[in-house]
Amino acid sequence: MTVGVVGAGQLGRMLALAGYPLGLDFLFLDQSESTPGGQVAPILCGALDDPALLGELAARCEVLTFDWENIAVDALRQLEKQVRIAPSVDALAVAQDRVAEKRLFEKLRIPTTQWRAVDSEADLRRAVSELGLPAVVKTRRMGYDGKGQSVLRRTDDIARAWEALGASSLICENLVDFDAEASAVGVRSARGEIALYPLSGNVHRDGILRLTRAPFGRAPLHAAAARYVRRILREFNYTGVIAIEFFVRRGSLIANEIAPRVHNSGHWTIEGAVTSQFENHLRAILGLPLGSTEARGHSAMINLIGALPPRERVLARPGVHFHDYGKTPRPGRKLGHCTIVENSARARDRAARKLLKEFALPISFP
Amino acid sequence: MTVGVVGAGQLGRMLALAGYPLGLDFLFLDQSESTPGGQVAPILCGALDDPALLGELAARCEVLTFDWENIAVDALRQLEKQVRIAPSVDALAVAQDRVAEKRLFEKLRIPTTQWRAVDSEADLRRAVSELGLPAVVKTRRMGYDGKGQSVLRRTDDIARAWEALGASSLICENLVDFDAEASAVGVRSARGEIALYPLSGNVHRDGILRLTRAPFGRAPLHAAAARYVRRILREFNYTGVIAIEFFVRRGSLIANEIAPRVHNSGHWTIEGAVTSQFENHLRAILGLPLGSTEARGHSAMINLIGALPPRERVLARPGVHFHDYGKTPRPGRKLGHCTIVENSARARDRAARKLLKEFALPISFP
Repeated sequence: MTVGVVGAGQLGRMLALAGYPLGLDFLFLDQSESTPGGQVAPILCGALDDPALLGELAARCEVLTFDWENIAVDALRQLEKQVRIAPSVDALAVAQDRVAEKRLFEKLRIPTTQWRAVDSEADLRRAVSELGLPAVVKTRRMGYDGKGQSVLRRTDDIARAWEALGASSLICENLVDFDAEASAVGVRSARGEIALYPLSGNVHRDGILRLTRAPFGRAPLHAAAARYVRRILREFNYTGVIAIEFFVRRGSLIANEIAPRVHNSGHWTIEGAVTSQFENHLRAILGLPLGSTEARGHSAMINLIGALPPRERVLARPGVHFHDYGKTPRPGRKLGHCTIVENSARARDRAARKLLKEFALPISFP
Repeated sequence: MTVGVVGAGQLGRMLALAGYPLGLDFLFLDQSESTPGGQVAPILCGALDDPALLGELAARCEVLTFDWENIAVDALRQLEKQVRIAPSVDALAVAQDRVAEKRLFEKLRIPTTQWRAVDSEADLRRAVSELGLPAVVKTRRMGYDGKGQSVLRRTDDIARAWEALGASSLICENLVDFDAEASAVGVRSARGEIALYPLSGNVHRDGILRLTRAPFGRAPLHAAAARYVRRILREFNYTGVIAIEFFVRRGSLIANEIAPRVHNSGHWTIEGAVTSQFENHLRAILGLPLGSTEARGHSAMINLIGALPPRERVLARPGVHFHDYGKTPRPGRKLGHCTIVENSARARDRAARKLLKEFALPISFP
């Protein structure tokens, strides 16, 4: 049974590595053979919206999924009669548009930021006067890893932000003064079975995820996240893994965005949960029973960005699991991650701090 | 960095799956692309002793290893000037010959069975009269999974055994009336670092491993196994994973055989130890620091032989990890395995018995 994957980044690579033990085969579509996925499975090389290649991918696989959400929705819709696509293109379409995401949160009574759609500099000035400062302006589409965003602290910042981003449709939101960031990774199978991983606590820097710790937060926070995730999964009759990123302020969750796919903040589940998010995504889209999402110990996942520390030094640290995505180093690029699993949150935090210090990674957490 | 692997069976496949996260590439040599390894990495197709293909493999990899011990030693020796081979061809040569194995055990003061080399029916009659009955006669070379063996219970059995096996050089041993079977999986790195996994308890049927439980046995048994493994690792300046199979009788270990490679009785380490035997074999042969061999909970590994139960039913059991090797079913063929990890030996045994019952596998354990 072959799983087709549009996008062959590290997420696709880890999907394939999780799927081989289940007896699955993989076929990727991406621009180059030397992508992380293309190193571990066959790949069709070309544009992600090339109709001929998408058609070939659909013809050669039993189910089609994606490891990247900025895929042309129209191109996928053309394939829907030919092959089952999971998660659904509807969910993908919402996740591609920050305004549609906000409307979804509001419809499902999931707390989110205040926001205004912005299509002109006048719109932006009006939004700022209504929402107050500080605020953040973001492109509605194609944003990831903090790209396409600008923080507004003074009214003087408006013109600069408009100049930088105004070529696209925008959204303006109030900037949340959060206590922490968290994400919930959940999964719903083609049979309607739902499972949730423990909430993760995240640390970003320059808009890029740097560190995830799990389990994170107390039971009421986890319960609130679980309610919100379930509402979204049911809304779409969703199939596969989904991640919702939240701000945490005074013990409450404020939804920030949705990723309709396996997620960087779920990488800790490879060693830190009974079943990884990658295996559960595959089980879900194939209509197989879901595996347990229970945590095994206390995990920390540290992203390795821009440059990888020497493999020998990472592996010399007892109990550190290394994941090298096989990418060419480039500033700001996610090249790999490592995961620590310990028996207590305290031991986990101590080991994570040691590792951050040893590799001079400028990340701290409370 | 590319690891060349002679043999692309399930062991090679699991080596590659463990090595991709370390940023390694793999190249196999085996007879068919549809081998378990060939499904997850590039493969050179041809005979395992084809000099041209071995030369190409050596030229394209930084280190060469094997997933099968019945490889022509002479063909490998030709490559030793061209590429580093690990484990060493010397260790491989000893493991290929049951008589050389026995001499090694005796040299290193590792208790083993009484034995006689047998090259004629007269030799066999003499061996039986000296060792007594019951005895077992085995081909010196090319035996695996119980193939090439015959048990002698009465002197009448001698002629039949000679007829069946006498075309090869043989060994005759006294048949051990054991209380249990166990195996020790150890690893020594190119830097001389040594680590041992907890002892495993094994159940065979018709000469094929069916079930492994780990950790197994009390501390003195583990300590004895560790001493014996260390002696062998040091004897060869060994690099990589090794397995030694033992009989356990009245609390003592009797060495049966050596496998100079990752081993079926170590499959539980994928989910049940901090670092799997596959990852540690790769770390060892690449001169990287070894990972922790500590157990995470109590594991049982069940081989799936001849036919795979339906994937849905295996995955429906919470906490069961499934490994499908992608092979065509055939009676007696190892097609996959599943692993259970629980927090106590009791819960592990209960879960293992349930699984054996559900899939009607005729295996029992005390």
